[in-house]
Amino acid sequence: MRTEIATLGEFGLIRHLTEGIKPSNKSTKYSIGDDAAVLSYPADKEILITTDLLLEGVHFDLTYVPLKHLGYKSAVVNFSDIYAMNGTPRQITVSIGLSKRFCIEDMEALYAGIRLACEEYGVDIVGGDTSSSLTGLTISITCIGEGEKGKVVYRNGAKETDLICVSGDLGAAYMGLQLLEREKAALRGKGEDVQPDFAGKEYLLERQLKPEARRDIIQKLHEAGIVPTAMMDISDGLSSELLHICTQSHVGCRVYEEHIPIDYQTAVMAEEFNMNLTTCALNGGEDYELLFTVPITDHEKIQDMEGVKLIGHITKPELGCALITRDGQEFELKAQGWNPLKDEKDANPPVE
Amino acid sequence: MRTEIATLGEFGLIRHLTEGIKPSNKSTKYSIGDDAAVLSYPADKEILITTDLLLEGVHFDLTYVPLKHLGYKSAVVNFSDIYAMNGTPRQITVSIGLSKRFCIEDMEALYAGIRLACEEYGVDIVGGDTSSSLTGLTISITCIGEGEKGKVVYRNGAKETDLICVSGDLGAAYMGLQLLEREKAALRGKGEDVQPDFAGKEYLLERQLKPEARRDIIQKLHEAGIVPTAMMDISDGLSSELLHICTQSHVGCRVYEEHIPIDYQTAVMAEEFNMNLTTCALNGGEDYELLFTVPITDHEKIQDMEGVKLIGHITKPELGCALITRDGQEFELKAQGWNPLKDEKDANPPVE
Repeated sequence: MRTEIATLGEFGLIRHLTEGIKPSNKSTKYSIGDDAAVLSYPADKEILITTDLLLEGVHFDLTYVPLKHLGYKSAVVNFSDIYAMNGTPRQITVSIGLSKRFCIEDMEALYAGIRLACEEYGVDIVGGDTSSSLTGLTISITCIGEGEKGKVVYRNGAKETDLICVSGDLGAAYMGLQLLEREKAALRGKGEDVQPDFAGKEYLLERQLKPEARRDIIQKLHEAGIVPTAMMDISDGLSSELLHICTQSHVGCRVYEEHIPIDYQTAVMAEEFNMNLTTCALNGGEDYELLFTVPITDHEKIQDMEGVKLIGHITKPELGCALITRDGQEFELKAQGWNPLKDEKDANPPVE
Repeated sequence: MRTEIATLGEFGLIRHLTEGIKPSNKSTKYSIGDDAAVLSYPADKEILITTDLLLEGVHFDLTYVPLKHLGYKSAVVNFSDIYAMNGTPRQITVSIGLSKRFCIEDMEALYAGIRLACEEYGVDIVGGDTSSSLTGLTISITCIGEGEKGKVVYRNGAKETDLICVSGDLGAAYMGLQLLEREKAALRGKGEDVQPDFAGKEYLLERQLKPEARRDIIQKLHEAGIVPTAMMDISDGLSSELLHICTQSHVGCRVYEEHIPIDYQTAVMAEEFNMNLTTCALNGGEDYELLFTVPITDHEKIQDMEGVKLIGHITKPELGCALITRDGQEFELKAQGWNPLKDEKDANPPVE
């Protein structure tokens, strides 16, 4: 079924998509329907703001990304940024630009994904903008969250001897992307009824198509009484993010190859693609795991935490940032993460 | 001069464009450079959030809109939404998607306009996102502002007998757009050295290319001790906005044609274009004036306020929304304002 968007118009479409949305957060005082949303936060909270712009053909490929998944992911990547400040996401605004190629049912699917993510994470949709575009789909989401005063965690607080930790495992989302790209190329011209076989690779696809933000880790850190000295989420690859933390904190680091958490499916796929597994884990993007540093005095607490791995430690700045390989060699860490402005024709993470 | 954006990359470009930006508001605790910006508002303030998505070819035409003006306007239209809540804009995030057609100098011009608007209005740039796009220029700005608790003005508070007021004059920005479109058509094929003659029409162009948000009116209302019962800014045309206020407030209205403020240049241009002047004032978009209602007890205070005109009054809902023409006839008000989703081929306001 395909209903043209023109039948509803801008206000009609917004009303249709946001129907039945009820704010669940106390801090949401007035949501959709006025010149601005009105929020009210208590004085002991700091307010966190993050925003992401997603453009068709650059950040997503609708030939293999279902719109509902895209909506879910668009919201979750913003939540991830708020958790990475040791905060809690509370509201989002959703702006969408869409060409005539899209119909109301498409927008319903996209919005269903956004609304599902908001339900899962307890976030309110409080506003946005909807417009036609001449080409493709544009999604711009801004997320507002809260952090306890004095407990917001920045990138610039890592100190010498701090332990470097990472949640979950790395490289799987990137492998999922490679897999989807390969199937897309293989299926081209074979007709629409050919279904690719992804058996045994579900985890990779899920990591790419439906990532989750690590609210659980923030909760565990809170329960364990640990406030990281620095933290960020891994969206452009571990190397790139580690360099951000080290640059902003004016420190160096040592990371151990053998400790970088990698899932079995990621390893199998890297071999299948004849790619260096560590490079994938270091430079593959879109993991949305948390990278953080804690004081060495938290060593015992953190080493037993499920879902967290110690991968190295912070050093004096003079020592630079290096990876220690399994055979004991030191390699300088370089940011080879995803850079959507470096070269438009090759928007995927360069992996050597 | 043309420097390719690829020479800087995403992080380099952001650093370059945001160089030297220093927050000027107390509520800005941490701006660019982390996963999220950190804001801190006192407990007696409500926080206002608004967002706008601007797409090339739909919302602006770079053949006659200079990038610096576009930047300025993109920011100001968001400030206008915050003022329309009886608030003060404090922070913005700026997300930009750009194709290879654009170079670093283009982005400098765009950002110079955004930064100028922020300086003029005392707003901090606290974050954003920059990415390549496959086609054209995309600008997504989110503005965060503050309002006094209990003094935020919504669209839904207009009461029977309230007076309807409008700031400035209407229809000029729309006439400016018509003028630019006419010159664009006339100059097509005549070579780049032909300069159109806009003498005597400067006001129309300024209203279209460099609109201002009515901070001054908000200030005057505050000084006069007036809190409007309902308010919004006029971006889609007076008719459309009045209907929003009446629908959300469950009231009707009477507006008097003879009282609608129109500038002399707007009238001259409407005649030149053979357009109905009142229709232009009612349905032309992008005025960014304030439309608000005040209790009839504020009549004396408001009638002497410079830059504000009384154009009608609020009625019982049964009476509907109508325009009273100069010859005493009643016409039902209809929203014919700019609707970017109704028909993509004709994105301009339909004027009969």
